[in-house]
Amino acid sequence: MMSEIIYFDQAASSWPKPPAVMDAMMKCMQEYAANPGRGSHQMAVQASRVLFDTRKHAAKLFGIKNPNDISFTLNTTHALNLAIKGFVKPGDHVICTNVEHNSVRRPLEHLKATANVEITYLSHNAEGYIELSELERSFRPNTKLVVVNHSSNLLGTIMPVGEIGGICKGRGVKLLVDAAQSAGVLPIHVGDMDIDMLAFPGHKGLLGPQGTGGLYIHPDVDLDPLMYGGTGSQSEAVLQPTVRPDRYEAGTQNTVGIAGLNEGIKFVLAETVEKIHAKEWRQTQMLMEGLLGIEGVTILGPGIGQNKTGIVSFNINQVDSSEVAFILDQSFQIAVRSGYHCTPLAHETAGTLATGAVRSSIGYFTKDEEVNALIDAVREISFQYA
Amino acid sequence: MMSEIIYFDQAASSWPKPPAVMDAMMKCMQEYAANPGRGSHQMAVQASRVLFDTRKHAAKLFGIKNPNDISFTLNTTHALNLAIKGFVKPGDHVICTNVEHNSVRRPLEHLKATANVEITYLSHNAEGYIELSELERSFRPNTKLVVVNHSSNLLGTIMPVGEIGGICKGRGVKLLVDAAQSAGVLPIHVGDMDIDMLAFPGHKGLLGPQGTGGLYIHPDVDLDPLMYGGTGSQSEAVLQPTVRPDRYEAGTQNTVGIAGLNEGIKFVLAETVEKIHAKEWRQTQMLMEGLLGIEGVTILGPGIGQNKTGIVSFNINQVDSSEVAFILDQSFQIAVRSGYHCTPLAHETAGTLATGAVRSSIGYFTKDEEVNALIDAVREISFQYA
Repeated sequence: MMSEIIYFDQAASSWPKPPAVMDAMMKCMQEYAANPGRGSHQMAVQASRVLFDTRKHAAKLFGIKNPNDISFTLNTTHALNLAIKGFVKPGDHVICTNVEHNSVRRPLEHLKATANVEITYLSHNAEGYIELSELERSFRPNTKLVVVNHSSNLLGTIMPVGEIGGICKGRGVKLLVDAAQSAGVLPIHVGDMDIDMLAFPGHKGLLGPQGTGGLYIHPDVDLDPLMYGGTGSQSEAVLQPTVRPDRYEAGTQNTVGIAGLNEGIKFVLAETVEKIHAKEWRQTQMLMEGLLGIEGVTILGPGIGQNKTGIVSFNINQVDSSEVAFILDQSFQIAVRSGYHCTPLAHETAGTLATGAVRSSIGYFTKDEEVNALIDAVREISFQYA
Repeated sequence: MMSEIIYFDQAASSWPKPPAVMDAMMKCMQEYAANPGRGSHQMAVQASRVLFDTRKHAAKLFGIKNPNDISFTLNTTHALNLAIKGFVKPGDHVICTNVEHNSVRRPLEHLKATANVEITYLSHNAEGYIELSELERSFRPNTKLVVVNHSSNLLGTIMPVGEIGGICKGRGVKLLVDAAQSAGVLPIHVGDMDIDMLAFPGHKGLLGPQGTGGLYIHPDVDLDPLMYGGTGSQSEAVLQPTVRPDRYEAGTQNTVGIAGLNEGIKFVLAETVEKIHAKEWRQTQMLMEGLLGIEGVTILGPGIGQNKTGIVSFNINQVDSSEVAFILDQSFQIAVRSGYHCTPLAHETAGTLATGAVRSSIGYFTKDEEVNALIDAVREISFQYA
């Protein structure tokens, strides 16, 4: 039964995965599930090699010069917490936007409550865009960091990260980019875009398994580690080693997950993000045109013809989004997500705090007939609430 | 070639895994690799269910009443950092031992350097045991926490955790136990042993994959989260939810890894830790008797007849341990670990700071003939250095 599900929750976790991802994970479990960097025997060496190979491919995808400037993490939230808690000091000022995920907002609000950190939330328009002039006006003498998502997990809006990076660089302020919805589906070059830290998931656009993610840290940026512990290097030292990536990777890493991620990234590199984005964008247009032809349906974020990622969030009149999602799941075997998507401030702006929104998200393996099935299902549901 | 390796590095990561572990991971990747707790559709519900099922089995194994008092982590280091950084406040005093892993020592030393935290390291004898009277004498008015490993990752010594728990309880001081080397191979009951927090790995004695681990937190203990972010619950709240396990599990969890861990724990529950420990102990005795029959070989930690876990660390005269490990790997296809094993203070006591130690570690799938092969190989190597 599960295999018949039409999966439109790609923004939460991509599915299915390329077969090479599963193959690499099985090979790891069966042949070399030893502890990378903790031994010099052949199995441990092979485990270390897979970690480095994955770093190398991620570096290639993101225009990163030194693969060791990437540290692996449990998920994007871990990467964002490492970046924010490791970089922002008491009394600092941070600028972010109203469409940030709770994985940015909550660590910042925690620092605000406990370490006297100041936060400016940039407003955005209905399509999710911020005004760069508002960003320019928001800098203060104590501004230490700007945090923006590359693409909104609710609206699919694509932020002008390169322009934001240029502005930050001109001010001598570091830029942290949350690439949760863009890694693997939009071009990212940390050098060209002046990105100082890039947090990315392994299990979304990079097509790897859950339990993986990473943080790129520019060589000029030094972070306090989030976790201290064994690194397999400098065992005799009482303090955390400064060598990368060990400094930020205490404890045993998720070798099997990273082995799968490696294949996901290789798949993306081979297909190219340009091709992936173009395919997903074409289907968002199909989906939006279909949905907008249904009476009572409204779509959040960028409209027809505008650039965006594979996310199409919508509502049917004032119907609670969780009710729509429930019917889609139970009666149509279509998986979407309802609710607030961890971005309550964005819902304030969108005027959807009462209903939440139904978020459908498209992936590289989504088929045209699945898009049509979703449109047909929403049309049927809309009749019930007409 | 890899399949012929004789694997004595079980204390770093257990291998091989029960086939059910791999089967569950494949099923997850192929059928329901959706985002647990982030959607209400069937795939997400199945992902959530696997997480809860795993919590339930871990709770059963460790005598934990409420499975939601277990939070999953990337590894034991993550669990220990969550416990230590989340509980110890500036000016607090912490007692631990000289045989703690760097995953305990380094976060404590970081707090000492940055938050005025005081640390007492309890000394241990050559067999790795501490004096409970020294523990009793070490309490101060500001003692907040005692941290001990259940079993040393270098010596295999088994700490009297229940007695330590009783002492801590009598003083009103919380006890954090590092079960990196004991979870799945020694009986653990958090209630009977008065353990307030228990950090455990998924990829060692519990026979799951890397990228998994967890922390049990007694309901009376409230920790500051290590990571803040989306939890799928209370999305609209600016602060981290207080409900467990969400409070300590921000971001997408490692569903596929946890699905594997679930099968590992079920395997342990079915075999019983008593049977697993008895089997491993019998082989440690075989191995120690064999090694002690070789001229020049010395063994660290508890001797013949004493209780211990499956770890047998040794040296051949004053030969550098990394050289011995290298020869075992290259000439005999035997995987062991050399060096300091992230416990430099223990090596000071053992007098092995110059050589480190060769650590061989036995698992549930280790065969008697493999133990004999290791003994024969060490004998041959010892001839070269006679």
